[in-house]
Amino acid sequence: MKFYDCSTAPSPRRARIALAEKGLLDTVERIEVSLREKEQMSPAFAAINPYLTVPVLELDDGTRLLSSTGIYHYLEAAFPEPPLMGRTAAERGVVADLEWRMEWDGFSAVGECLRNTVQGMAGRATTGPDPYEQIPELGERGRARAQRFVERFDALVGDKPFLAGDFYSIADITALVVIDFAKWIKIKLPEDAANARRWYEAVSSRPSAAV
Amino acid sequence: MKFYDCSTAPSPRRARIALAEKGLLDTVERIEVSLREKEQMSPAFAAINPYLTVPVLELDDGTRLLSSTGIYHYLEAAFPEPPLMGRTAAERGVVADLEWRMEWDGFSAVGECLRNTVQGMAGRATTGPDPYEQIPELGERGRARAQRFVERFDALVGDKPFLAGDFYSIADITALVVIDFAKWIKIKLPEDAANARRWYEAVSSRPSAAV
Repeated sequence: MKFYDCSTAPSPRRARIALAEKGLLDTVERIEVSLREKEQMSPAFAAINPYLTVPVLELDDGTRLLSSTGIYHYLEAAFPEPPLMGRTAAERGVVADLEWRMEWDGFSAVGECLRNTVQGMAGRATTGPDPYEQIPELGERGRARAQRFVERFDALVGDKPFLAGDFYSIADITALVVIDFAKWIKIKLPEDAANARRWYEAVSSRPSAAV
Repeated sequence: MKFYDCSTAPSPRRARIALAEKGLLDTVERIEVSLREKEQMSPAFAAINPYLTVPVLELDDGTRLLSSTGIYHYLEAAFPEPPLMGRTAAERGVVADLEWRMEWDGFSAVGECLRNTVQGMAGRATTGPDPYEQIPELGERGRARAQRFVERFDALVGDKPFLAGDFYSIADITALVVIDFAKWIKIKLPEDAANARRWYEAVSSRPSAAV
C-alpha cells in the first residue's frame, strides 16, 4: 500500500495512528506531501486525489481511499485485529456515532476557525480545489464551537477508560487529533476537566500517538 | 428497537431507507418527532438525545445511536444481509469514503445554505442545542457548494450502476437524500447529466425511496 501523508497536518495523523495501531505503519510506502509547500495543489497530486487532500491510501490493486473515514473502514475490514471499531454490533454503532461526532463537532469546528482566519489560507477557506473566500464570522463561530467542544469533552468521556467504553477505538483517535489540533487556535482542555485529562494522558501516551 | 423519526426531514430519511432496505422498517417502533412543531427542542426529547436531532435508533438494550452514520453501522453489523456497505475490504473502504463525501460535500452544503438563509431558522444556524446566529455569507457559500456538488455528480457516478460500483450502498442512500434535499433550495441535477439522471431514476424507484 502507498500512504500519502503529511507529517505536520492533523487529518493524515488520524490515518497514521490507525495504521500504527494495526501494526501496519512500517509496511506501507509513505509519501510525504508538504502542505506548507502546497504540494497537494500540484497537478501531480491532483492526478492522485482530485480533492487535493491528504491522507490518501492507495491499495495494491490501485483503489484509492481519499478520506480518513474511508481509510479507517478499509483497515478495519482488511486487518481486523486489533479491532478499532468495536466487536459487537452495538459497539460498532456507538463507535461510528462517536467518531462522526468528533469529526463534526470537533474537527470541523477547529478547521473552520483556522481556515477562515489565518492569512495564509485566504481564498482557500474550505479544503479541496474550490477557491472560497474566508468568512470572518464563520471563523469566530468555529472558535466558539471548538471552545464548547473541549468544555463538553469531559462529560462525554465520563468515567469510562475510552470514549466508547472500555476499549480503544477510532473515536479516540479522532478525538486525540482534534484536541491537539485545537491547540493551534489556543484552545485547550480546561484545567479542571479531570476525566478528559485522564483520557488524554492515556491515549496520547500510546506509542501510536507519537508516529 | 425504537426509531425516532421525522417523516418530512432529510436526515432521518437516510436511516429510514436503510431500515427499509434491511427489511426492518416494520419491525421497529416508530416515534414521529415533529420538527415543524420544534418537538426536538423539548425537554422530553432532550432526555432521549441531548444533541436535539433525529434520527435516533434505540436498541433493545437501551443503547441509543444519535447519528445516521451510527445507525448505518449498527444495522450493517447486526443485520448483514443484504449488505449496504460492500462485501470486500476494498469495497467497504470505498463505500465509507463515498458516503462521507456525500455528507460532507453534499448534505452539509445544502444544510448550510438553508440554515443560514431561512427566516424560521434564525438563531439556529447549526443543528443541536447551541443558538448560533445565521451568517448570510455562509448561506451563499453553501448554495455555491451545493451547486458544484450537483454539477459534479454526473462524473462521480460515471457509467457505474451505483456510486461505489455495481452494488447499491449507503453512499447511494445519502446521495439520494442530498439530491432531493437540494430541491429545497431550488438546486437540481442538470438536464444533460445523463449518468446522474439514470442513477437517480434507479435509486429513487426502489421501494425504500418511498418510505
